[in-house]
Amino acid sequence: MNFLFFFIEDGLGIVAKLSECISSRGGNILSVDVFVPENKNVFYSRSEFVFDLNRWPRAEMDADFLKLSKLFNATRSVVRVPSFDRNYKVAILASKQDHCLVDLLHGWQSARLPLDVTCVISNHERGPNTHVMRFLERHRIPYHYLPTSKGNPRDGEVLDLVRDTDFLVLARYMQILSGEFLESYGKDIINIHHGLLPSFKGSYPSKQAYDAGVKMIGATSHFVTEELDAGPIIEQMVERVSHRDNLQSFVQKSENLEKQCLAKAIKSYCELRVLPFEKGKTVVF
Amino acid sequence: MNFLFFFIEDGLGIVAKLSECISSRGGNILSVDVFVPENKNVFYSRSEFVFDLNRWPRAEMDADFLKLSKLFNATRSVVRVPSFDRNYKVAILASKQDHCLVDLLHGWQSARLPLDVTCVISNHERGPNTHVMRFLERHRIPYHYLPTSKGNPRDGEVLDLVRDTDFLVLARYMQILSGEFLESYGKDIINIHHGLLPSFKGSYPSKQAYDAGVKMIGATSHFVTEELDAGPIIEQMVERVSHRDNLQSFVQKSENLEKQCLAKAIKSYCELRVLPFEKGKTVVF
Amino acid sequence: MNFLFFFIEDGLGIVAKLSECISSRGGNILSVDVFVPENKNVFYSRSEFVFDLNRWPRAEMDADFLKLSKLFNATRSVVRVPSFDRNYKVAILASKQDHCLVDLLHGWQSARLPLDVTCVISNHERGPNTHVMRFLERHRIPYHYLPTSKGNPRDGEVLDLVRDTDFLVLARYMQILSGEFLESYGKDIINIHHGLLPSFKGSYPSKQAYDAGVKMIGATSHFVTEELDAGPIIEQMVERVSHRDNLQSFVQKSENLEKQCLAKAIKSYCELRVLPFEKGKTVVF
Amino acid sequence: MNFLFFFIEDGLGIVAKLSECISSRGGNILSVDVFVPENKNVFYSRSEFVFDLNRWPRAEMDADFLKLSKLFNATRSVVRVPSFDRNYKVAILASKQDHCLVDLLHGWQSARLPLDVTCVISNHERGPNTHVMRFLERHRIPYHYLPTSKGNPRDGEVLDLVRDTDFLVLARYMQILSGEFLESYGKDIINIHHGLLPSFKGSYPSKQAYDAGVKMIGATSHFVTEELDAGPIIEQMVERVSHRDNLQSFVQKSENLEKQCLAKAIKSYCELRVLPFEKGKTVVF
Repeated sequence: MNFLFFFIEDGLGIVAKLSECISSRGGNILSVDVFVPENKNVFYSRSEFVFDLNRWPRAEMDADFLKLSKLFNATRSVVRVPSFDRNYKVAILASKQDHCLVDLLHGWQSARLPLDVTCVISNHERGPNTHVMRFLERHRIPYHYLPTSKGNPRDGEVLDLVRDTDFLVLARYMQILSGEFLESYGKDIINIHHGLLPSFKGSYPSKQAYDAGVKMIGATSHFVTEELDAGPIIEQMVERVSHRDNLQSFVQKSENLEKQCLAKAIKSYCELRVLPFEKGKTVVF
Repeated sequence: MNFLFFFIEDGLGIVAKLSECISSRGGNILSVDVFVPENKNVFYSRSEFVFDLNRWPRAEMDADFLKLSKLFNATRSVVRVPSFDRNYKVAILASKQDHCLVDLLHGWQSARLPLDVTCVISNHERGPNTHVMRFLERHRIPYHYLPTSKGNPRDGEVLDLVRDTDFLVLARYMQILSGEFLESYGKDIINIHHGLLPSFKGSYPSKQAYDAGVKMIGATSHFVTEELDAGPIIEQMVERVSHRDNLQSFVQKSENLEKQCLAKAIKSYCELRVLPFEKGKTVVF
Repeated sequence: MNFLFFFIEDGLGIVAKLSECISSRGGNILSVDVFVPENKNVFYSRSEFVFDLNRWPRAEMDADFLKLSKLFNATRSVVRVPSFDRNYKVAILASKQDHCLVDLLHGWQSARLPLDVTCVISNHERGPNTHVMRFLERHRIPYHYLPTSKGNPRDGEVLDLVRDTDFLVLARYMQILSGEFLESYGKDIINIHHGLLPSFKGSYPSKQAYDAGVKMIGATSHFVTEELDAGPIIEQMVERVSHRDNLQSFVQKSENLEKQCLAKAIKSYCELRVLPFEKGKTVVF
Repeated sequence: MNFLFFFIEDGLGIVAKLSECISSRGGNILSVDVFVPENKNVFYSRSEFVFDLNRWPRAEMDADFLKLSKLFNATRSVVRVPSFDRNYKVAILASKQDHCLVDLLHGWQSARLPLDVTCVISNHERGPNTHVMRFLERHRIPYHYLPTSKGNPRDGEVLDLVRDTDFLVLARYMQILSGEFLESYGKDIINIHHGLLPSFKGSYPSKQAYDAGVKMIGATSHFVTEELDAGPIIEQMVERVSHRDNLQSFVQKSENLEKQCLAKAIKSYCELRVLPFEKGKTVVF
């Protein structure tokens, strides 16, 4: 399956031209989602179509779409087409809590997630006999233990390790990445926050929620920006709590939500369903 | 807003032609949903677009779309465009339970549902001072009391009363409509069943569910076919129950679900989001 | 059915004595919920039991329970027993938005909620032919139009109108009640906030949520305290939103949640299921 | 924590005596759930209390509770108290699909579930390098490959392997256990059915659901009885599906629900929250 994501600031006739282009190359459209926000001059489209690589080589497809975007005199156009020959290269950053890390590794192994895990980076050391370390060893995935401290975030070392990735996943990574890192890395970083943003930003959101006496708790998956826990939200999931839940069960319920929420966000992202929208928001087809 | 629903058995190039047609007439597409089931030769599309009636009168639009469907040598094509000048004319059939009927009447009154209630037909008599009767009197909606019995379903009289409608709603109407009626009426009939189909067809689904010891109950909205409670499902909603729920609370929870489920199905239907799919199923955009 | 709510700071042997007392008077316990928070010296219990008023008159029951609480040398004990001969007298305060008000009035009328609506107070004027006004007129419920302004909250007049109630409901009442009012009234006030607290306090929570790009929105029912939107939470309900939801559908979805959330909180409150817990939280049996 | 489950057919004064007994032995009650179904003569109670083993040895506790149940001239009383020194010994039966099996093994390993997995029995052979086999080898849990066929269910061999367990878990085990096996084994067996019972019993429930055009699918955890997929339901979970879900995604969504539903049922069961109720139902505190 192939995807085309067009973000063009001119809506007139685009769906027509897009489809005509695909058809003329022998492609067959399987699904199209088009979204034009009210009163705006932007246009989001995601098409799934099948085609014959022999009839429409990648280089020609790139050229065709580039021509199309120029045709519309677009001030800004972005075309994303997934690669066909490899999965997404991703590095996973984690700290002490490993429920999300483990779920992602299993998701990778069972091909539930279309990833290529290049390495795991952690500021927490794990013994060689732990499930994670044995798993990584068996699958020859490097584990980089980079202990950090207040004056030594070691961003530069992390950057060197992840330059070659398509995106990063912060799986309960408790170290804040600096603005310089974000700028240098330049690609997307997906984080899981164990609270229902914008409530309970920062540390110990489960304790914050417990003290606030809420009756619903949640997890949020979002893109990382320089402001902590404030980047565009991709996915959120919730669960009920009551007075019978103590802090421990708040945490257990939260961990279950975090795993599902992060995996879902990553899956949507890899399927090119997630697009930046307005200021600080996302379209998720 | 205007909708176009195309169901054509030939997927090649259609999205292109469709969009081109709309654009050429000065229309602007706001959203498109396209769904092509795997391995099938059918194609579902729903577009929302705005246009200027002066530039593209209704008669010409009809002609344009007819030409398009012929162009594809479609064996079967259906075009539905909502009317712009009136709501859907609908008759509501109810029996003794009136929670769905009341919710629909309020939905009509507050314009939450795009309906024109032509009349209410019931095999149960209501006193003049009941909320329903006063409401109908104030809004000048006829109430037809048609008591039925085993040998006397009075289908013919119902048919005479509803010929002029766009579709029918069975809001907990406990009389079964005959195959002849369905054939003569010929248009869509939406029913609410107070059980999560295909579980608990027929009478007293709440009691059936209660006796089965289920932990989830639900309501189902579906198109009426000759087979009881077996027509294509449009919408389903569920809620948890436990040992602490007695039969009365099963019923209360069910009534809450029925209201929401039926209203949602009707809303989707009126917005042309509901399409027949394969055998006995629906696409709901 | 009768309820007993005991809140005593001494857990030892209480369930035993309580039950023994009820049994000795010929009562039969139908259900008991006991909750003792970890590491605390408080004890919450809610019992449902049936008994014969002739055998155990109200005055004697009161005396028996008073004796019991003294027996435990309780520093603080609260006994609440619902009245058997009348519903809860409640005044509803509303502003322009009437979806919650209408739902409560219907709930009262259909006996879905065990209330006695003494009056409706609003800082918004309603025409005589509106559904609300006709409903109130038919059921002889007074409607007090009290327009407020920054320097003139008219708390005193509200107080005079509601002195005789058991509790108050703020059904999307957009005027803030002063600390003096809360102190003078002294009884419980339940509010519905159209946001998932503690997110989006204050005005326009739907717009705040829309701008924040959340994927879940919610409503919160809580007790009113002097701090705005910060009192102990009783109930919360959520629904998913996506990029396809504009501000209008955020509001529509929110209104649906508000109705259900407020009604549920009021029902729980009237059934004596809601108890203050720790600082700013509730136990809801 | 300790639990007491009393099922006595005489409700009068029991809560009192029970609590008094616990208090007199120096125990402190932390929570009590009592449920007395309407119009019935049965009584369910679950108490959590802490006590000092030195002050109240297990043998004396057993004697005290026995005396209590005799005191009430109970026709039928069942007392269950969990063991304090070991987890529940359980054998897991699985076939080819291993998502539930893997989730249970991880749950056991992380102590998320209070189990002692004695062995895994399967009618499907697994290669030595698969995740399951390596996991079992590392943790020294025997894997018994027992291929079955129509005339050879090999119940007897299964029985020999599981005699020593507290209960059994069928984690997508596709072989039907005979009535003789159920009788001989005599203890509880928990099964996960990948359909929302009573809909879609038997084989391929995902395909059945897909063909039925439902909009909600679910999983059901229940006790095994001689009738296939008809034993008392313990837990059910649901998820939405639409026309965009093909059979593969029906199955994926179902697998996710099955894991969660089975784990939750087992956890509730181990915490003595699950009690037989009426005919074919359960109380789940």
